[in-house]
Amino acid sequence: MSDKRTELGTFGEFKLIEHLTDQFRITNPSSLLGVGDDAAIIERDENTYSLISTDMLVEGVHFNLMYMPLKHLGYKSVAVNVSDICAMNGKAEQVVVSIAVSNRFSVEALEELYAGIKAACEHYNVDLVGGDTTSSSSGLIISITAIGQVAKDKVVKRSGAKENDLLVVTGDLGGAYMGLQVLERERLIFEENPSIQPDLDGHDYIIQRQLKPEARVDVIGYLKELEVVPTSMIDISDGLASEVMHLCKNSKVGCHVYDEKLPIDGATSMTAIDFNLDPNTCALNGGEDYELLFTIDQKDFDKIKGNPHMTVIGHITHESDGIYYVDKNGAAVELQAQGWNHFDS
Amino acid sequence: MSDKRTELGTFGEFKLIEHLTDQFRITNPSSLLGVGDDAAIIERDENTYSLISTDMLVEGVHFNLMYMPLKHLGYKSVAVNVSDICAMNGKAEQVVVSIAVSNRFSVEALEELYAGIKAACEHYNVDLVGGDTTSSSSGLIISITAIGQVAKDKVVKRSGAKENDLLVVTGDLGGAYMGLQVLERERLIFEENPSIQPDLDGHDYIIQRQLKPEARVDVIGYLKELEVVPTSMIDISDGLASEVMHLCKNSKVGCHVYDEKLPIDGATSMTAIDFNLDPNTCALNGGEDYELLFTIDQKDFDKIKGNPHMTVIGHITHESDGIYYVDKNGAAVELQAQGWNHFDS
Repeated sequence: MSDKRTELGTFGEFKLIEHLTDQFRITNPSSLLGVGDDAAIIERDENTYSLISTDMLVEGVHFNLMYMPLKHLGYKSVAVNVSDICAMNGKAEQVVVSIAVSNRFSVEALEELYAGIKAACEHYNVDLVGGDTTSSSSGLIISITAIGQVAKDKVVKRSGAKENDLLVVTGDLGGAYMGLQVLERERLIFEENPSIQPDLDGHDYIIQRQLKPEARVDVIGYLKELEVVPTSMIDISDGLASEVMHLCKNSKVGCHVYDEKLPIDGATSMTAIDFNLDPNTCALNGGEDYELLFTIDQKDFDKIKGNPHMTVIGHITHESDGIYYVDKNGAAVELQAQGWNHFDS
Repeated sequence: MSDKRTELGTFGEFKLIEHLTDQFRITNPSSLLGVGDDAAIIERDENTYSLISTDMLVEGVHFNLMYMPLKHLGYKSVAVNVSDICAMNGKAEQVVVSIAVSNRFSVEALEELYAGIKAACEHYNVDLVGGDTTSSSSGLIISITAIGQVAKDKVVKRSGAKENDLLVVTGDLGGAYMGLQVLERERLIFEENPSIQPDLDGHDYIIQRQLKPEARVDVIGYLKELEVVPTSMIDISDGLASEVMHLCKNSKVGCHVYDEKLPIDGATSMTAIDFNLDPNTCALNGGEDYELLFTIDQKDFDKIKGNPHMTVIGHITHESDGIYYVDKNGAAVELQAQGWNHFDS
């Protein structure tokens, strides 16, 4: 090893994984898709693939126990992995959960965490089949791996979008981010004056979006009923802009996203304006909505038209056309992914 | 949540997992075996099961970077998961690796870690197919999940041992533990006087046992060639005594282990004596050898007799006979598992 020292912040989070794994080669015939999608694809049987996704949640980085109840944290940690399996158009069936935890936590605290994990397992019909529990010198770290399956002719990757496909997003965007802003504001007020009770009135929806996100397993069901197989799909964990860029990069296409099409709940918009933020910017760059972003062939448009869970927000262009965000006046700016680089502090 | 506070150390590590997960029910027909063995068993195809094992390694708890080179750590973190799949008589094929890492580490340090992961992937013919890389407030945490497969008629659990079966262990025991003692001694000397070079001469074997343990994939091959399917199996991560008790508890049997049968390498014995330790105690309670402990039907004894990788160390008795450690004079003491309770500090 040379004495050179490159700081972790030099790379973004995605680039770092890419950099660390780009020398790895896949050799087993059963490994069909490796690093770089929402889940890995493994041969299962004649008609089915296995899907494997994994996430690590670190206290102080991904969650703050000041306002994140442990039960919600347990629920969310399962939901985000189920969401990754949804993003492959699959059904999660098992999870393994490992935690590292310091002596600061009591058995009762872990019981709360596992009550949340159990609630999510029941809600998503997923079985906890393994895990590891160990101590850490500081804080709580949760690592979850989900195992799912999908019919071979239904699997959807990030890489299948084609020119003229429509870009579709589920639900609404920016809510989880604005929920976090409200929780952060109340935390700061509380830290300054612990006698003031948190004022979360009227913010139920966006706080729920932050504290109890749901994987869109319902959407996977709708797509099946509608007989629509997206040409590409990803879940929105880091923000719409970042995920649009992942889809386009993996599919080698460009895209136009129309700002007036972005689905934003009224509660999100109002809170954004309260915070002097542009609601569209929150929708573009706010993370953790766990909605699905996918592309469909134009011939499938009639099937999803009017579906209250799906909004067409743009269309796919040729790679050389670039990735653009188009405003009401037709002015186009190149899309920038803020994403979340946890290594920059 | 009540205000009661039960310290984590109240439970052992295994009992804690049991306690936290005992309310979980398995509902998917594809989930065939959940928490409580070396790996979970999931339906795959007509003839095959999938196996899933997971482990979390925490800096300061499971490894000390003072003497554990990052490349070795990467190698070991894959090897221990491959070992779990071996313990089900299976073949590991994929791993997903998540790490949380503080800014203390450079990109070059992570490159070393991943070089070790890659070396292990190549050695064991396992593909890295996913993972997550995130920051932590302190130290390095590695979470690995391995996915493997096994023919349905070859899968081995912890629960199949029957009265009169023979208890067999692979390789030799206590080496990894004595390697750790030597490394710890040299670390303390170095901390007192950094000008003294570590004296590891003559300790190559036991240090290698600690720093670069290998999963016994070779033994899984021998068992196949010999047409022996063990009746139960477990890998030795926490020490022989602890694993014997797991096998017996899961199989609802008792057992006699004979002290004079324990396979101990000369280098391990000599170092133990140097440290005023009883070699047999090191073999019984020293962890991290990653050998396999299994039981076979007596009819299979001729097949393994004389095999240099396998030693019969005892036999299975009725559950009511208890779990005994028998010395040269025939004196029997009830076996106590020390195991490793990382929550006791």
